[in-house]
Amino acid sequence: MKIFNDPIYGFISTRHPIILKLVDHPFFQRLSRIKQLGLTYMVYPGAHHTRFHHAMGATHLMQQAVLSIREKGIEITEDEEIGVLIAILLHDIGHGPFSHALEHSIVSGVNHEDLSVLLMDRLNDEFNGELDLGIEIFKNTYHKKFLHQLVSSQLDMDRLDYLKRDSFYSGVSEGVVSSERIINMLNVKNDELVVDQKGIYSIEKFIVARRLMYWQVYLHKTVLGAESVLVEVLKRAKELARKGEELFASPAFHRFLYHDFYKEDFLKEEVLLAFTELDDFDVLTSIKAWCHHEDKVLASLSQSIINRKLPKVLISKQKFDQELLDKKIKDTLFSMGITNEEAKHFVFTNSIKNNAYNALDDSIKILFKDGRVQDITEASDNFNVQALTVPVEKYYLCFPKS
Amino acid sequence: MKIFNDPIYGFISTRHPIILKLVDHPFFQRLSRIKQLGLTYMVYPGAHHTRFHHAMGATHLMQQAVLSIREKGIEITEDEEIGVLIAILLHDIGHGPFSHALEHSIVSGVNHEDLSVLLMDRLNDEFNGELDLGIEIFKNTYHKKFLHQLVSSQLDMDRLDYLKRDSFYSGVSEGVVSSERIINMLNVKNDELVVDQKGIYSIEKFIVARRLMYWQVYLHKTVLGAESVLVEVLKRAKELARKGEELFASPAFHRFLYHDFYKEDFLKEEVLLAFTELDDFDVLTSIKAWCHHEDKVLASLSQSIINRKLPKVLISKQKFDQELLDKKIKDTLFSMGITNEEAKHFVFTNSIKNNAYNALDDSIKILFKDGRVQDITEASDNFNVQALTVPVEKYYLCFPKS
Amino acid sequence: MKIFNDPIYGFISTRHPIILKLVDHPFFQRLSRIKQLGLTYMVYPGAHHTRFHHAMGATHLMQQAVLSIREKGIEITEDEEIGVLIAILLHDIGHGPFSHALEHSIVSGVNHEDLSVLLMDRLNDEFNGELDLGIEIFKNTYHKKFLHQLVSSQLDMDRLDYLKRDSFYSGVSEGVVSSERIINMLNVKNDELVVDQKGIYSIEKFIVARRLMYWQVYLHKTVLGAESVLVEVLKRAKELARKGEELFASPAFHRFLYHDFYKEDFLKEEVLLAFTELDDFDVLTSIKAWCHHEDKVLASLSQSIINRKLPKVLISKQKFDQELLDKKIKDTLFSMGITNEEAKHFVFTNSIKNNAYNALDDSIKILFKDGRVQDITEASDNFNVQALTVPVEKYYLCFPKS
Amino acid sequence: MKIFNDPIYGFISTRHPIILKLVDHPFFQRLSRIKQLGLTYMVYPGAHHTRFHHAMGATHLMQQAVLSIREKGIEITEDEEIGVLIAILLHDIGHGPFSHALEHSIVSGVNHEDLSVLLMDRLNDEFNGELDLGIEIFKNTYHKKFLHQLVSSQLDMDRLDYLKRDSFYSGVSEGVVSSERIINMLNVKNDELVVDQKGIYSIEKFIVARRLMYWQVYLHKTVLGAESVLVEVLKRAKELARKGEELFASPAFHRFLYHDFYKEDFLKEEVLLAFTELDDFDVLTSIKAWCHHEDKVLASLSQSIINRKLPKVLISKQKFDQELLDKKIKDTLFSMGITNEEAKHFVFTNSIKNNAYNALDDSIKILFKDGRVQDITEASDNFNVQALTVPVEKYYLCFPKS
Repeated sequence: MKIFNDPIYGFISTRHPIILKLVDHPFFQRLSRIKQLGLTYMVYPGAHHTRFHHAMGATHLMQQAVLSIREKGIEITEDEEIGVLIAILLHDIGHGPFSHALEHSIVSGVNHEDLSVLLMDRLNDEFNGELDLGIEIFKNTYHKKFLHQLVSSQLDMDRLDYLKRDSFYSGVSEGVVSSERIINMLNVKNDELVVDQKGIYSIEKFIVARRLMYWQVYLHKTVLGAESVLVEVLKRAKELARKGEELFASPAFHRFLYHDFYKEDFLKEEVLLAFTELDDFDVLTSIKAWCHHEDKVLASLSQSIINRKLPKVLISKQKFDQELLDKKIKDTLFSMGITNEEAKHFVFTNSIKNNAYNALDDSIKILFKDGRVQDITEASDNFNVQALTVPVEKYYLCFPKS
Repeated sequence: MKIFNDPIYGFISTRHPIILKLVDHPFFQRLSRIKQLGLTYMVYPGAHHTRFHHAMGATHLMQQAVLSIREKGIEITEDEEIGVLIAILLHDIGHGPFSHALEHSIVSGVNHEDLSVLLMDRLNDEFNGELDLGIEIFKNTYHKKFLHQLVSSQLDMDRLDYLKRDSFYSGVSEGVVSSERIINMLNVKNDELVVDQKGIYSIEKFIVARRLMYWQVYLHKTVLGAESVLVEVLKRAKELARKGEELFASPAFHRFLYHDFYKEDFLKEEVLLAFTELDDFDVLTSIKAWCHHEDKVLASLSQSIINRKLPKVLISKQKFDQELLDKKIKDTLFSMGITNEEAKHFVFTNSIKNNAYNALDDSIKILFKDGRVQDITEASDNFNVQALTVPVEKYYLCFPKS
Repeated sequence: MKIFNDPIYGFISTRHPIILKLVDHPFFQRLSRIKQLGLTYMVYPGAHHTRFHHAMGATHLMQQAVLSIREKGIEITEDEEIGVLIAILLHDIGHGPFSHALEHSIVSGVNHEDLSVLLMDRLNDEFNGELDLGIEIFKNTYHKKFLHQLVSSQLDMDRLDYLKRDSFYSGVSEGVVSSERIINMLNVKNDELVVDQKGIYSIEKFIVARRLMYWQVYLHKTVLGAESVLVEVLKRAKELARKGEELFASPAFHRFLYHDFYKEDFLKEEVLLAFTELDDFDVLTSIKAWCHHEDKVLASLSQSIINRKLPKVLISKQKFDQELLDKKIKDTLFSMGITNEEAKHFVFTNSIKNNAYNALDDSIKILFKDGRVQDITEASDNFNVQALTVPVEKYYLCFPKS
Repeated sequence: MKIFNDPIYGFISTRHPIILKLVDHPFFQRLSRIKQLGLTYMVYPGAHHTRFHHAMGATHLMQQAVLSIREKGIEITEDEEIGVLIAILLHDIGHGPFSHALEHSIVSGVNHEDLSVLLMDRLNDEFNGELDLGIEIFKNTYHKKFLHQLVSSQLDMDRLDYLKRDSFYSGVSEGVVSSERIINMLNVKNDELVVDQKGIYSIEKFIVARRLMYWQVYLHKTVLGAESVLVEVLKRAKELARKGEELFASPAFHRFLYHDFYKEDFLKEEVLLAFTELDDFDVLTSIKAWCHHEDKVLASLSQSIINRKLPKVLISKQKFDQELLDKKIKDTLFSMGITNEEAKHFVFTNSIKNNAYNALDDSIKILFKDGRVQDITEASDNFNVQALTVPVEKYYLCFPKS
């Protein structure tokens, strides 16, 4: 049994050798160099926690969930336990650095879920099929569907850990979720993950907390601004690379800047392995070097990130006028002496959407004492949870501070 | 007034424009890319907090200390308040990435205190002398000596914050210090920082906590092992650079690898500015690239860091036998096929020393109700604090796991 | 300056001599023998915190609120500061033991607000008018209305402290409120307490947390059951006393059992002083003695409290059928061998209502950056806060467990 | 399975029906009316937690300890598990209200351990022998001695919980103990409870924390003063009762005031049952009534408790001069107009002793990786734990504030 300290749960311990072997693997160790929340630390200076720690935390909660569900008389075999632990441990293994930004600029055409599956398969070869069941659960091809729901659903261990961890490290105490209480209330009915009736208030609180975390942290306007600039830096770098201009980059990152890889390319071992060498360090080191690049656009965007000179961000419930946008672009091209096209790296608009709970997708089910199962939006008579399910869309506009 | 979230104190707020301007400066922003505890995250996966956050936290405590001391009737003028806040905010501004390792390999001959002073002077020019008083306090040339003690002494705000912060983020709850209580007990007598008599137990606890943090975190043997390997990686890289071999590195880091700078070199603007571009990202990105270098020693040491394949570390109260050392070196050169000299990068011994409280250096003074002032080691009759003041020295031996 | 330890805020300190003198007064010390949450500890075993501690905590928050509002440029004079601190410190001074139960049985016709005013006036005499301004603020006769709002409104320091404290001690972590953040966002516009726009999410969270505390703690059905039985014990005791039967009681409590005092009676010094001798201890000690009383109804109800043999409680959105009620009464009179009238002490129905936020009453106002002020229900476009404002009424039925 | 909220551990759950039945028993429910720390709330206003909650918490830790020890391969059968849980749940069942004070005044000749055994035997009759094994473990007559050590030794679950709980509720954060870590390190060697080598720092910290709690909370001079006055109140009441004077008291308490019961008396059912009706409420209600008693000594001492007009307390390493004592007595008899003998209820001296770790008694053993077992005082080479083992004795003198 090995024990890890965790400021949130006190201790995370594991007794399955395969879990320890996976944690020790370079693919997983890489996650300790990838921040869970990208550039969010620019607003919340404590938010430097990593995908490594999140994956460990979610695995810890999964262990508790397995015990809790077994207490209710639902069978989870030893193999299934190990499988579901593997599935949650590796659920984010395919994340690249600043995932969102990268997927919008460098590694287009392949998302982190695809890469997670590819990397799990690769690990499975290395571990002689020991991950078979875990991969089945992850892909939802295993016959007990509730195990997949523990890994990926409205109430999975991924969310329970990340909400708690993100709120803890960012210091936004309003997002704190009582994961222990929710896990104690988990149950299974007709092979479906449900929550015992008495957990209904905790679920409401969970939905509210998730929503607040969206607006206060994940979609905080300065964070949006910083991540938008990051996307533009990478787009500009890619443009320059395509034109054959020389750009400093670490070897692995250089490869992705100068080639366009598509989903099928990642089936090649060398491309996949190159990907597993990328982390936050490559990206930020390169951007830091680009601060001195002769391309004014690249240099200026890079300095914006490195020196935290972030754009002005306006938020609105309506789309921004094209007129306003044009005016801002014009202001920028004048003041910076760049082209209209180049100015679009500094002035742009986009939209964000948050619905804390998407009932259409899949939903949180409440198990009543009489055996009935109901969707939380119907089960909760005290509180208009439905009000929370209406997706909210907002528009934002970024432009340089004068 | 601007507010930062902090998981430890809830909020850190500041109302002095100069403090905000310094925080916004690239020199200070750089600290957000330098981890407070270097590679400690390899043992304590939560320990990714940065020097940026520590400096903010220490400044927050300083603000409280100023209020507390004023409440006792001791005068601290508005200018002195700003000065002492500047001094603590910038006290670590000269730290490089993985400071300890770097100072033992790359930037020999200059330590972070020297660099802090150089950078403060540089900032002072930029801010037209607004930092004058802060620098005087930092250098201890200001006539009210207790202000310097708040920045640097056995009981300074630096220590109060880092002990609390390191213990919080590493999850080693035993190191938690009641900074609020200690600050409430601070007083000044004859221009010397003292602690009111009723704070005596808190001070004892502080000394004990500090000692425990040393053995459990700062000098944890796996951390020692990781940082020793880091020193060796950098030494080897420097050796190769001196021989003219080509090594990947970011521009700023490349410069320091391929030149030997001495203290006086940092007086040149260009060298100083190059230094301010270095952070953790340069070092780890380079080491990651070196994993594929053809030099077997460099590649192997680099992989040890990146993939967390750390050496075996033995701890002993006695020096290790030369015989044992020779045997381990021989084992290593055989198994790796390297020279005796090269094997010394993998097998080496060193010593560490911890004295939680060094009475000789400077000491914590207790102020009794009758006006007497006594050293804590004498004042504390309940407890043999002196037992804690005997420095403990230990030896460690690192060698590759078979 | 005197410091009190508080597990919630760390320290509560006060520097105004009048506050310390009031805390030391027997009227205030009495509050340390009155639990904030009455019998709630029967469900939440940690909930033994007292009105004393709550009043101290609310005073601590008031001190912070004064500082925060002054930072915004709103004047609060030293006298007003002391006044508003006095008002919050003494806001609950008129609470009796198990206030709700007592007001429904023993001291009918006078509520704790009336008594608070009477006791404040009494203290003001003793302190030669030092409480004048505090009493004006408490009664809302002082010209600066926002000071009264800090003491009593939808967002007063009373609520901020009790929500936090009740949630902390009961261990219902979902109720935690970020009082520090809310206080930082307080402002005053047109002599009205408002919240800065950026505090909007915290206010939403506050309303949600308050609602959850209602359903999970304040109106928890077992708590309702226990407090209902307490009301019945006291009613029965009063019935017996009126008939002249002898009942054990402490001297002060005896007086209230054997006399019916009305509001005007409390203007007499001796009645008011007798009241100030009552606390939880009189009530529970007497009930314990009554477990052996020969009146079967009194003895049985008393045992229910002392030995925690609580009734069954049903909750419903509809009123309970008279038929069901009659059946339960019949069952009880048969099984216990008591009269129909007596059985109504064991079987009864009642209703409870919760609206976390009552917009009609008074409302939380948001101050936008452009100077506009809006009610939170309109200001919050992200979230249907209005859903929370619909009062929810529920019915409950208590009867003996078979 | 039933769940209790606990602010410290989050949840306390139990799945053994016998534990739930014992918790529901009036003997155990009584503990919810007995504060763990008596009058300590007069100094630390949060310290109202009860012996009920402590016993629940210690039982929770015991459940964890059983799991942890089993993980090390040590057998603990289901029956033994239940036994050791019963033993810890009931370990304090014989405590009276303000135990220390009562044992020095009212129920002389019998201590709470004796009463615990008597009450356990009584419960065992009621539960038809289900407590047999638990009682054996409690009395240390069961053959596996380490189970008793979990209930009562230097490192038992009693201490782990009370240190944590007392420090939590009093707000003295320095006393926080990492119970989870210590429990994870528990092991058994040769039927003796030991701690794995890597837990050595946590044990040191535990000893230090315990010592600090002694001086800061348990032996805080104002607490000493309050509890000394309580002893004097009860002594005086007993004196008056012996003289046949009439004193108000609840029926159960009256019995103990007016009779002298010795150990053998408690073998009688009626005396034992009378004892189980005593709690904090009887004592404080009576003292409150005595504030108006015509005996000036009794009234004055009672007012001292009720209105928190506590004596002046001096602490010294040396015994106080008889001369000083005589002077203070003389001052008091003059100012109060009482006899020399009566004045001794107001002026008295006594001694207190604290040794955080008593190596002679029984000791904490460390288990090294090589199988050796050593006492912590020898095992800990880093730290002079022995310094902590020297018992410290202090003297205190109480007398009325002028």
